[in-house]
Amino acid sequence: MALTVVGSIAFDAVTTPFGTREKMLGGAAVHFSLASSFFTDVRVVGPVGDDFGDAEYAVLRTRGINTDDVEHVPGGETFFWRAHYDFDINTAHTDDTRLGVFGEFDPKLSQASKDSEVLFLANIQPDVQRAVREQSNARFVALDSMNLWIEIARDSLIKTIETVDCVLLNDAEIRQLTGKPNLVQAAREIRAMGPRVVVAKQGEYGAALLTEEGFFGLPAYPLETVIDPTGAGDSFAGGFVGYLAAHGGEDLSHETLCRAMAYGTAIASYNVEEFGTERVTRLTRDEVTDRVAELQRITHFVDAPVELRA
Amino acid sequence: MALTVVGSIAFDAVTTPFGTREKMLGGAAVHFSLASSFFTDVRVVGPVGDDFGDAEYAVLRTRGINTDDVEHVPGGETFFWRAHYDFDINTAHTDDTRLGVFGEFDPKLSQASKDSEVLFLANIQPDVQRAVREQSNARFVALDSMNLWIEIARDSLIKTIETVDCVLLNDAEIRQLTGKPNLVQAAREIRAMGPRVVVAKQGEYGAALLTEEGFFGLPAYPLETVIDPTGAGDSFAGGFVGYLAAHGGEDLSHETLCRAMAYGTAIASYNVEEFGTERVTRLTRDEVTDRVAELQRITHFVDAPVELRA
Repeated sequence: MALTVVGSIAFDAVTTPFGTREKMLGGAAVHFSLASSFFTDVRVVGPVGDDFGDAEYAVLRTRGINTDDVEHVPGGETFFWRAHYDFDINTAHTDDTRLGVFGEFDPKLSQASKDSEVLFLANIQPDVQRAVREQSNARFVALDSMNLWIEIARDSLIKTIETVDCVLLNDAEIRQLTGKPNLVQAAREIRAMGPRVVVAKQGEYGAALLTEEGFFGLPAYPLETVIDPTGAGDSFAGGFVGYLAAHGGEDLSHETLCRAMAYGTAIASYNVEEFGTERVTRLTRDEVTDRVAELQRITHFVDAPVELRA
Repeated sequence: MALTVVGSIAFDAVTTPFGTREKMLGGAAVHFSLASSFFTDVRVVGPVGDDFGDAEYAVLRTRGINTDDVEHVPGGETFFWRAHYDFDINTAHTDDTRLGVFGEFDPKLSQASKDSEVLFLANIQPDVQRAVREQSNARFVALDSMNLWIEIARDSLIKTIETVDCVLLNDAEIRQLTGKPNLVQAAREIRAMGPRVVVAKQGEYGAALLTEEGFFGLPAYPLETVIDPTGAGDSFAGGFVGYLAAHGGEDLSHETLCRAMAYGTAIASYNVEEFGTERVTRLTRDEVTDRVAELQRITHFVDAPVELRA
């Protein structure tokens, strides 16, 4: 099934303990579409300015991503984000945000984008997400969001969540949204809003899947060196939703969702091994499947009969 | 193989969002020995005061735990700890600590305790842990510690770590001890000190095993309600080390260590379902094996052949 992603296309300036990049391609829709392009036809929808050129388009098109709905705003500047990560590399510290053309983003989907069977609403103002969702004929819709919208646009976010099938959020955001510290209870509350699938992203600890049918927990792939965590969550979402678009079919069984978690985890782990999109643009199919197999190995245990004492 | 644990025996006063207990049996050695008693003969070594009576001994003895080396200090008071947990129940806030007889604890092991093949050094001043280790003839020794000792007695702690086979610490403590934010690197540095097994306890996220042979990650069992997290880490350690004592044999294969992680995780998950030792004292063998099977189910995925795009 074809997949459309709507979200930010950006230039990132990032400093981590391992170096600095002053201007690299980034944004949620970019990381998501690169990851999902391993699985299915992907269309990316988002605004760019005059500073967005052939080199940037090439990164997307080389992976076969359709950029017809990338909206070039003449005279505008592409969304720009500057951040640094300290010694404890898990937390981004934002130093500058210049929304540029993203501030006025009013997505208009082409017929082909409307007709994609799967839609991913990357982190945008929830009113905008809902407007996109209303244009779309997708049969499966997933969304991401962030703490800012939970704080200042909670009601709108909940109205949007009511219209989607799957929510991917950090576990802290799931707690913040529901006011429930217990993840199992919080996920149930989100499912009661409408979505049948809740994915809790847990950063370096991995991710958890919480559906009516059950729970599935998957640790992150253990890396020796994390160079730049930027885009990890969106790469995870791209692998997860991309897998579902290609292999989920109509039913979305628990087993399929679990496998999708593994593909998301695998691609996210590659994403953070280098700056920005550098690693994923070089990623091969074999590397993806190798890491999924490795994930299976390092999370698998088989119980043996033991004599316990009364 | 017989197992000796040396550590605190305590009375805890704990308040969580779900209630208060003014004086309940607790302490690392108590939680550890209750958990490990499902697997093997356990001897507990620790000091108590005049306030420690038949009811407390009965909790241990009912689970078959040998209390011959519980040292009663006449005129003394048992270690007392008061703490509360807030809405976010993962962090204990200590309100009062009265060391009592634990402040002067100078463990003397009986011959039987010295001759246990497995020794667990619960969180105590690292000089004391080392003195115990020197008295012991154990073939497998594991230890726990805490941030306080890393801060004020780091050199002594490292000298102690050099003498043991297995270190169990919170992941934050592993980073603090080594100064390395990356867990894989930090665990390797601890193994270079001597131990061949490093277990990173990750609280609500589960635990990770890091050996020369590889990595194994296991999420925590997803609970609807956590009533009191006190003792979760020690229950985990008790299940883990207890399993190794009974089923590890000489070799301690990676598979055995992974299974031990599951038993530790299972018992810890029961521990937090009620206050203090309340749940584990009622725990049955079938409940333990059921939860291990459930853990296997909720962490297991099987990849299916997929066609990825170049």
